[in-house]
Amino acid sequence: MRIALYPGSFDPVTKGHVDVAARAASLFDRLVIGVFDTPPKNLLFTTAERVKLMEEATAHLPNIRVQAYSSLTIEFARRIGAKFIVRGLRMGSDFEREFDMALMNCKMAPSIDTICLMSHAEYQFISSSLLKEAAQGGGDVSVFVPECSAKALLKKLKIKPGKKSTGTKK
Amino acid sequence: MRIALYPGSFDPVTKGHVDVAARAASLFDRLVIGVFDTPPKNLLFTTAERVKLMEEATAHLPNIRVQAYSSLTIEFARRIGAKFIVRGLRMGSDFEREFDMALMNCKMAPSIDTICLMSHAEYQFISSSLLKEAAQGGGDVSVFVPECSAKALLKKLKIKPGKKSTGTKK
Amino acid sequence: MRIALYPGSFDPVTKGHVDVAARAASLFDRLVIGVFDTPPKNLLFTTAERVKLMEEATAHLPNIRVQAYSSLTIEFARRIGAKFIVRGLRMGSDFEREFDMALMNCKMAPSIDTICLMSHAEYQFISSSLLKEAAQGGGDVSVFVPECSAKALLKKLKIKPGKKSTGTKK
Amino acid sequence: MRIALYPGSFDPVTKGHVDVAARAASLFDRLVIGVFDTPPKNLLFTTAERVKLMEEATAHLPNIRVQAYSSLTIEFARRIGAKFIVRGLRMGSDFEREFDMALMNCKMAPSIDTICLMSHAEYQFISSSLLKEAAQGGGDVSVFVPECSAKALLKKLKIKPGKKSTGTKK
Amino acid sequence: MRIALYPGSFDPVTKGHVDVAARAASLFDRLVIGVFDTPPKNLLFTTAERVKLMEEATAHLPNIRVQAYSSLTIEFARRIGAKFIVRGLRMGSDFEREFDMALMNCKMAPSIDTICLMSHAEYQFISSSLLKEAAQGGGDVSVFVPECSAKALLKKLKIKPGKKSTGTKK
Amino acid sequence: MRIALYPGSFDPVTKGHVDVAARAASLFDRLVIGVFDTPPKNLLFTTAERVKLMEEATAHLPNIRVQAYSSLTIEFARRIGAKFIVRGLRMGSDFEREFDMALMNCKMAPSIDTICLMSHAEYQFISSSLLKEAAQGGGDVSVFVPECSAKALLKKLKIKPGKKSTGTKK
Repeated sequence: MRIALYPGSFDPVTKGHVDVAARAASLFDRLVIGVFDTPPKNLLFTTAERVKLMEEATAHLPNIRVQAYSSLTIEFARRIGAKFIVRGLRMGSDFEREFDMALMNCKMAPSIDTICLMSHAEYQFISSSLLKEAAQGGGDVSVFVPECSAKALLKKLKIKPGKKSTGTKK
Repeated sequence: MRIALYPGSFDPVTKGHVDVAARAASLFDRLVIGVFDTPPKNLLFTTAERVKLMEEATAHLPNIRVQAYSSLTIEFARRIGAKFIVRGLRMGSDFEREFDMALMNCKMAPSIDTICLMSHAEYQFISSSLLKEAAQGGGDVSVFVPECSAKALLKKLKIKPGKKSTGTKK
Repeated sequence: MRIALYPGSFDPVTKGHVDVAARAASLFDRLVIGVFDTPPKNLLFTTAERVKLMEEATAHLPNIRVQAYSSLTIEFARRIGAKFIVRGLRMGSDFEREFDMALMNCKMAPSIDTICLMSHAEYQFISSSLLKEAAQGGGDVSVFVPECSAKALLKKLKIKPGKKSTGTKK
Repeated sequence: MRIALYPGSFDPVTKGHVDVAARAASLFDRLVIGVFDTPPKNLLFTTAERVKLMEEATAHLPNIRVQAYSSLTIEFARRIGAKFIVRGLRMGSDFEREFDMALMNCKMAPSIDTICLMSHAEYQFISSSLLKEAAQGGGDVSVFVPECSAKALLKKLKIKPGKKSTGTKK
Repeated sequence: MRIALYPGSFDPVTKGHVDVAARAASLFDRLVIGVFDTPPKNLLFTTAERVKLMEEATAHLPNIRVQAYSSLTIEFARRIGAKFIVRGLRMGSDFEREFDMALMNCKMAPSIDTICLMSHAEYQFISSSLLKEAAQGGGDVSVFVPECSAKALLKKLKIKPGKKSTGTKK
Repeated sequence: MRIALYPGSFDPVTKGHVDVAARAASLFDRLVIGVFDTPPKNLLFTTAERVKLMEEATAHLPNIRVQAYSSLTIEFARRIGAKFIVRGLRMGSDFEREFDMALMNCKMAPSIDTICLMSHAEYQFISSSLLKEAAQGGGDVSVFVPECSAKALLKKLKIKPGKKSTGTKK
């Protein structure tokens, strides 16, 4: 059975993430979406919230499981029996960092391979960080995220109204 | 009447910024330079100081107005009636982020277009962050900035003499 | 006598750094490795530790001296009589920032030239920041660093055991 | 009156070209689309055909004129009184060549400025050369080009049926 | 059953190609290596030779079949029932063209997905074109290619001895 | 004695080439400028002409010798005793190809190192191919090339007057 890990922060899950997950789900027998459990200093949502949003957004995909993890990504892959790590590539992503990561992982865990899926044209320019800046500035980002993320953003940003006037820089 | 917005942090204004502003001013009937009013944690100058320096540096250009703003950039553009957002492109700038921003803005505000001007050769390699590192390390950066910025940097860095010995990293 | 400066944070020294140092040492009569003495907020090792590790890692190279500095890099180069600054280029490095730095330095100190050495294939994908993330997550990074760095990382990360569970993000 | 030149080979005109032309037409008082009259060794359509297709594709835009030219682009701009040259930027385009061209033109004709419009998301990945490869291989490219280009491609490739089996390389 | 197509010119097959093929073979149930049957003007080997070399180089992989094709790549994928196209990504490859191709294919054949595998560190810098330049200049390239390719290059270049003195440009 | 090779086509020599040569001459004891003797199908000047123009343009530099060569670059380096190959890097150059070449050479000739000098700001955007296009279109390119090249271009393009009306494409 081919098991793959799709790791990320998913803060929150976007339509681009769901697209990559759906395509990876059709490529592998089982896909584990690993939500990285990191201290939330630069994140908007807690780990539990990010896991819950991802579960909602991928509920229609049968062979997917969402799971938080806090170890090294390749360690988590080993533990769940995943021989493949899935990454979504956007033109706007940092190729060099992707290569550094993939090749460092390959040195440390040669039996785990990195598989890249190119984001489809309509999701190429959805950057999570810009999206949060826009939402915090009061922009309507519902076109970029699943419905559950859109609602969660609205709710979260009401809770922190001081951030509402921040706007996007540059 | 064609109105454009040239947004940025301008911390402080460089010769490259003035060049882009002057060229944009000849392209549009009116140009509003939007100084983004952001909490100054990573900035050297206050919003009021950055507005004042930009006003001095562009005083010779008749159809320019400098204004601080704190909302989403596309909201500010709408409010001032600007149908165009102007960006200066340097080889050393982050194209991917520029594309992400332009295309996200385009989705959220289809009636506002992004216009890019390529920095001229002599301004291509003026990065605001490196420039501040150099000035803080005691370097003479007067060749890269208008006279008002050069004076303001000297004065500001005397006020914070502890920073003078920081130098440039790497 | 041709003297060159190889500046950096070296937090800690990697096999890639040693390779660049060795090649630069064969190109110049004397090579000073400048360890930038910066406040350690984002660094793992103190300046003294970074100097000591670099000295150990380059002990076999006769014409190398390791020295901490806190001034502007071009000022330090002038003070030690270096007419050349050496930089290692990785595919994964930030070319634009390298160009910005080299060309800004060239404007401020025309008599000092920047020399780039391309990292060899086996060191191309060693990024210091990813390496520290991996080590903090419990990964074995001894294949990427000299023995002294590997030992120092183990020791340092025992002292800060809270960081051990952080893992690599994304 | 602000006149701009939008130069290119347009072999044949794509939806991306029409989009850039329409946006430039709203930015300037008059837009001249310059079809470069080059020996057709690497081109599919003659200069006359490319002019005619562009005229059809932009017939709905009032302030546009299509014109062939064979001189240096900046000479043609001067002759028609254009102070601006318009370029469409795709993520997939060659930024470095664009910069080289813009900055060389700027040295040779300082009074003419280059204005870049970023292609909208749906046109970002339309490359003329890939499109022709696909059409020649029998692919349906009508989603990427205006109707007139689609028809012309079908007709042209019937005339050269030997090319139909070429396919896309790589 | 998951079938994938790995298309290319393979002129001749390199160790990097074999590595990508082996990894793709472990990811899919069946892998068809499609050798593009193109007029040999810029190629060193005929289509038949390129197929034979690829067959030799991948003889140890059970679920691989090598086949020439001359139609559009997505047409060939459809004909053989492949739902996936595999591409090897090198840092030195042309990302923009890869994205253009993947996204154009995705528009024309939405049911076929493109999967990218990053070349391993030791194969990152093997460019087929440079390799042929080096071989034609008399360089020993056996470290970059399988034994069958090395032999074929030697034989082929003896047949065309006039090319032997060409060397690598730049 | 440290000997270096600065190889290229130099068709014709530009101010950027002379700048790199002068800086390399101060870095090494002797610099050999290798003019690659390639069939002139894509070149404007013959090998003899290119050697002569380079000799004129670097006549003021004492430790430089200009020499044509037709073998593999690393073979030529070995023959003249050069342990270093010098390359000029422009932002507008093809980094990936530079890396591929340097790392392939390093595999085939480990004892020869590649040294990169970043072009100075004023020479960053001088591309030989664009320059020839501009000259052929009748543009005045004397600001980009040494006097000898400017004269040679004028003379050469008079001989081929048919090319004068070609202009720059795109």
